[in-house]
Amino acid sequence: MPEQLAEVVDPANWTCPAPLRDQGVVVMGHGGGGALSAELMEQVFTPAYGNATLAGLADSAVLELGGARLAFSTDSYVVRPLFFPGGSLGDLAVNGTVNDLAMSGARPAYLSAAFVLEEGVELTVVERIARAMGAAAETAGVTIATGDTKVVESGHGDGVYVTTAGVGLVPDGVDIRPQRARPGDAVIVSGPIGLHGVAIMSVREGLEFGVEIASDTAPLADLVAAMLAVTPDIHVLRDPTRGGLAASLNEIARASGTGVRLQERAIPVPDAVANACGFLGLDPLYVANEGRLVAFVPPEEAEQVLAAMRAHPQGAGATLIGECVADHPGMVVVATGLGGTRVVDLPLGEQLPRIC
Amino acid sequence: MPEQLAEVVDPANWTCPAPLRDQGVVVMGHGGGGALSAELMEQVFTPAYGNATLAGLADSAVLELGGARLAFSTDSYVVRPLFFPGGSLGDLAVNGTVNDLAMSGARPAYLSAAFVLEEGVELTVVERIARAMGAAAETAGVTIATGDTKVVESGHGDGVYVTTAGVGLVPDGVDIRPQRARPGDAVIVSGPIGLHGVAIMSVREGLEFGVEIASDTAPLADLVAAMLAVTPDIHVLRDPTRGGLAASLNEIARASGTGVRLQERAIPVPDAVANACGFLGLDPLYVANEGRLVAFVPPEEAEQVLAAMRAHPQGAGATLIGECVADHPGMVVVATGLGGTRVVDLPLGEQLPRIC
Repeated sequence: MPEQLAEVVDPANWTCPAPLRDQGVVVMGHGGGGALSAELMEQVFTPAYGNATLAGLADSAVLELGGARLAFSTDSYVVRPLFFPGGSLGDLAVNGTVNDLAMSGARPAYLSAAFVLEEGVELTVVERIARAMGAAAETAGVTIATGDTKVVESGHGDGVYVTTAGVGLVPDGVDIRPQRARPGDAVIVSGPIGLHGVAIMSVREGLEFGVEIASDTAPLADLVAAMLAVTPDIHVLRDPTRGGLAASLNEIARASGTGVRLQERAIPVPDAVANACGFLGLDPLYVANEGRLVAFVPPEEAEQVLAAMRAHPQGAGATLIGECVADHPGMVVVATGLGGTRVVDLPLGEQLPRIC
Repeated sequence: MPEQLAEVVDPANWTCPAPLRDQGVVVMGHGGGGALSAELMEQVFTPAYGNATLAGLADSAVLELGGARLAFSTDSYVVRPLFFPGGSLGDLAVNGTVNDLAMSGARPAYLSAAFVLEEGVELTVVERIARAMGAAAETAGVTIATGDTKVVESGHGDGVYVTTAGVGLVPDGVDIRPQRARPGDAVIVSGPIGLHGVAIMSVREGLEFGVEIASDTAPLADLVAAMLAVTPDIHVLRDPTRGGLAASLNEIARASGTGVRLQERAIPVPDAVANACGFLGLDPLYVANEGRLVAFVPPEEAEQVLAAMRAHPQGAGATLIGECVADHPGMVVVATGLGGTRVVDLPLGEQLPRIC
């Protein structure tokens, strides 16, 4: 570990800086996918459920059932507004769960969809969300097989919340999980980052940045299949949603006990995202994506995997952004354009709540 | 069909009496599991998702995946209050989904759990719910394998909402679904009805009925396995939750195109439930249960199935309450103690919102 980093952060003794227990109540950051979310998981849910298979820090759990290897995942979607440039809550609810399954290398097959509706919301709004889900499911090649609807009184919801769960089949020989990152792995991102978060922010805050920025929401299972056709030995996949690339890479670094070193100039940040983030004082590394993945790939396979990704519509902008290193285990650093190095820490919460 | 019934209701031309489309907004009854819920499903969700496998009116969908026959189901839980005599939202969230899987004859295996928390709710409340879920999962023999947490601003939730989904394995030769009811089938309920709904009502409305009435929430998969050990040829299973026994039996009658005739005096209504319902002007047939099932069984197997149920703790109060008939297809009637007959129609919504 470089001397100057060791002075700043000691990952072995890292603790959450927030007085979670002292405060004693849920704060918005508990839903942000950062350190507070992780603490809630580690201190409340994992002990309560009393099992070690709790998705093992991955986006989906891989299970044996009836001789089949299944991926199983769930997410609730509470994004606000319900409709935004490039998509809607319905698109996220399908693509988000499809992508969580794909991040285990699974071929997503079936989804469930449970609605919590607020009394008084217009039926046409519900219908638009449902139709977006149907269309997204068709695009992703999955079937919405079962569902549920509950209604809560006005003032106890926000129009529409949707929770999807999904199951998919993990191909033989595929073992993709954060623990498998190892020094030397190439770190690849599938395209430009920050578009979803900035799209939501722009409509929510009424900001305009000259050009309309659209969410990148998209299903990634087909891209993953193309990557697995090159080699089944992909080590890690992650879709950097809440908490952005920074949260995903920190989780992988900690789970695997390796370091991650990024090249700042290589990270594809669209001008519009860079401008919006500059204006708002945000770091694009922490902004949510909904149609991107980050892959850790053995170095000898990196070039071929990159080529396969670039040949796929969802991976046209795939870029090598860094590597996995033996130095500074559990920590993510960025080599800046000026020759310096900065630490990219796990965010505490989310810069922008209710992003997905 | 008896003459007097035909004059009252023509099931072939039955239409929802609520001006669903005219009103244009979601009302509480859309979450009640009755006619309004069915209309939302038929007019909004099924066309939007564009597929016919949408659980086929059953509590769970049965799917082929990787050579295995899986049951897959989801429910959101928004019950209020979060804690009540006999259980909590956490118990319902596990037992409800376990039971939906069991109603396809499946052995439930894995659950997902997605929380939507309201900012400001006490962490100890979240922890109590999570611990109840862990304990209920252990009792039911399932593993909570994956989850998610989102947080919404104060005034956009109600403390804790939980959505669970579940997967289980359907044994070979088992084909349980509402369409399989046929004239002659024995109709069996696994125990006394109405306890969950009356328990919720009593705490919510601050009513006391002399004795404390506790929810019947319980996992039913083990009881179902005991029934299937007698014969794999169980035709239909249903857990009569929202809308009570009346909603479940109407759905089965319609899906199968058969009639159902109940003997009023045979239906096990505990005195405390009868008294509370009398006081509140409710019909116990429409009150929710969370630990009961109704089974349609070939008549020649009925006695043995009943015996197996009564030998099981969850089926100790199992009772034959009626039969499936060729008369009045799609309609449920009750032979009253006075020798008359009354129609038991599908409820419009739910007598008591947010019961589960």
